[in-house]
Amino acid sequence: MKNNTVITDNTDRTTAEYLRSIDTEGALIVTDANVERLCLPRIACLRDIPRVTITPGEEHKTLASAEQIWEALERVQARRNSLLINVGGGLITDLGGFAASCYKRGIRFLNISTTLLADVDASSGGKTGVNFGGLKNQIGVFSWPEATIIGTDMLDTLPQAEVLSGYGEMLKTGYIADASLVESLEAVAVAGVTVERLRSLIGRCTEIKRSVVEADPKESGLRKILNFGHTAGHAFESLLIKRGTPLPHGICVVYGMMTALILSHIRLGLPSEILSRHARLLRATMPAIAFTCDDYPALLGFMHSDKKNDDTSVRFTLLRNIADPVTAQSIDDEKIRTSLDITRDYLGI
Amino acid sequence: MKNNTVITDNTDRTTAEYLRSIDTEGALIVTDANVERLCLPRIACLRDIPRVTITPGEEHKTLASAEQIWEALERVQARRNSLLINVGGGLITDLGGFAASCYKRGIRFLNISTTLLADVDASSGGKTGVNFGGLKNQIGVFSWPEATIIGTDMLDTLPQAEVLSGYGEMLKTGYIADASLVESLEAVAVAGVTVERLRSLIGRCTEIKRSVVEADPKESGLRKILNFGHTAGHAFESLLIKRGTPLPHGICVVYGMMTALILSHIRLGLPSEILSRHARLLRATMPAIAFTCDDYPALLGFMHSDKKNDDTSVRFTLLRNIADPVTAQSIDDEKIRTSLDITRDYLGI
Repeated sequence: MKNNTVITDNTDRTTAEYLRSIDTEGALIVTDANVERLCLPRIACLRDIPRVTITPGEEHKTLASAEQIWEALERVQARRNSLLINVGGGLITDLGGFAASCYKRGIRFLNISTTLLADVDASSGGKTGVNFGGLKNQIGVFSWPEATIIGTDMLDTLPQAEVLSGYGEMLKTGYIADASLVESLEAVAVAGVTVERLRSLIGRCTEIKRSVVEADPKESGLRKILNFGHTAGHAFESLLIKRGTPLPHGICVVYGMMTALILSHIRLGLPSEILSRHARLLRATMPAIAFTCDDYPALLGFMHSDKKNDDTSVRFTLLRNIADPVTAQSIDDEKIRTSLDITRDYLGI
Repeated sequence: MKNNTVITDNTDRTTAEYLRSIDTEGALIVTDANVERLCLPRIACLRDIPRVTITPGEEHKTLASAEQIWEALERVQARRNSLLINVGGGLITDLGGFAASCYKRGIRFLNISTTLLADVDASSGGKTGVNFGGLKNQIGVFSWPEATIIGTDMLDTLPQAEVLSGYGEMLKTGYIADASLVESLEAVAVAGVTVERLRSLIGRCTEIKRSVVEADPKESGLRKILNFGHTAGHAFESLLIKRGTPLPHGICVVYGMMTALILSHIRLGLPSEILSRHARLLRATMPAIAFTCDDYPALLGFMHSDKKNDDTSVRFTLLRNIADPVTAQSIDDEKIRTSLDITRDYLGI
């Protein structure tokens, strides 16, 4: 894997410098219609590069969209030395990264991240892919961009829900690795979650992510700490999609972390004071999610079908304390139900 | 990459031993209808494993077939620890290898090679993929099987054209690496090309292939020597497909090697005696291909659209002598036309 991540408040200048520094034969931009409208006009150096524009939305993170990219690569007669430039959030960097990694058995790609969530998560983790058969990221490969440009000057284009989503992943990063980052993010929650208040913390988050991914690129062990909050978080996310009232990924992860912190307290003795702090932060910052015990079978079903799990138990990443994560904790369904009950108690759901 | 290749004359026993030796949760077989009929009944240990059967033929080496495999993996609830078992020739090992490598970002796969061509080439080279947009193997990844079982007891199921195809790739292996292997294969040509006469030479071919692939798994340099004969060979193959009279890959490579040997003589001073020997061998063993100068534009078009080339020139692997290959020799269209003229002279076309 490569690790060439640049954080910039001048995406146009940084991108132009990068493109001048490398040797390519031809390039193609992958983006979505929102990013094309809001961000691309501000990245002048990309103006004359051909592009393929994906319809926004998770339902377009498909093989059909990957085929759209492959067809565009053929149209521009891309070679092994060509560059695919993914400009957007995690959906675009996951999709474009997958398309690049399979075209002629792999051409290079550059990620230009335009959302806070992708800045701190998808844009540099090496997990590429598309959804398949109703499951998220079911088809994909591990593959790393040549470089990742994190354009903080693009963040003012984000709706507040997307800012909160990035905030959720930043908070997760703190929980697994850095108590002072958690404190800084709690202070932001009190003052109000804004891009301005988060900007200076992005670098710390990408550093932590990089060190974890470098140590275990293909998720054979350590890297699973990055899934903290995600087992229940993905289940909440899937439930909301099924209901037709989706919420951004990182927001669902903040809910999933409530459940994981409760399990951490029960299983590993995590101090209960941390549970209260998280509940307070969640209620102060996040949109409400309602669920009842009638939803437990669906939630458990989603957890069991997760890539990391099997039929007999669900494996969680838990915490002994902040910055002291433990992976692969098998929890039976009865305990999960209990933790969902307690989640509802803490959040007054 | 892994290098766990076993040559066996008892595929059933070797496969059973292998499956007992590894830890998996579930398996799925990928095969085609011919192999299912001719070979699978002889591999009893695979009897109770669910399977997906692809329609034979290059036109089914597609994303749609990969999706068929992914859907079957979902049906059998495959996990990260599951095993995909590819039983067949190069089409099946390329397709199944690609499907396994993209499922949940990569599950393990076992190749059981049932054709001579796959034995000495596709089954262990790590080049997986499918055709796309009319181009061969345009979508794929480099990825290696957990193990490759070369079942020489399956070779009696092969039509003679498939034996000749494998023979062609064996001959290529000799040209790039081993003069005594070339001499042995010339002796086989004189006696008549049969599976019995080739069986003892398979091991030497897989050894050579392994050492080359190990030194340069992703074809950044050295590995290109394996493409000897393939630049023109693929062009002949594509021309015949376009005409509706396809011939197996390795046979087309024997023709492509004639052209490459001629260019080697012109560019690098390869002794002309080698050209005469190859022409004699080709005429004694291979089915005839007819082409005229009217076909040159199409042949040149195929060469330029090859993954390794660009618009301005075509790069060949050539020989200074037997076992002394040189990669990335740029040849202009005029010289290619000349070499095609001389190819026709040598072969009396």
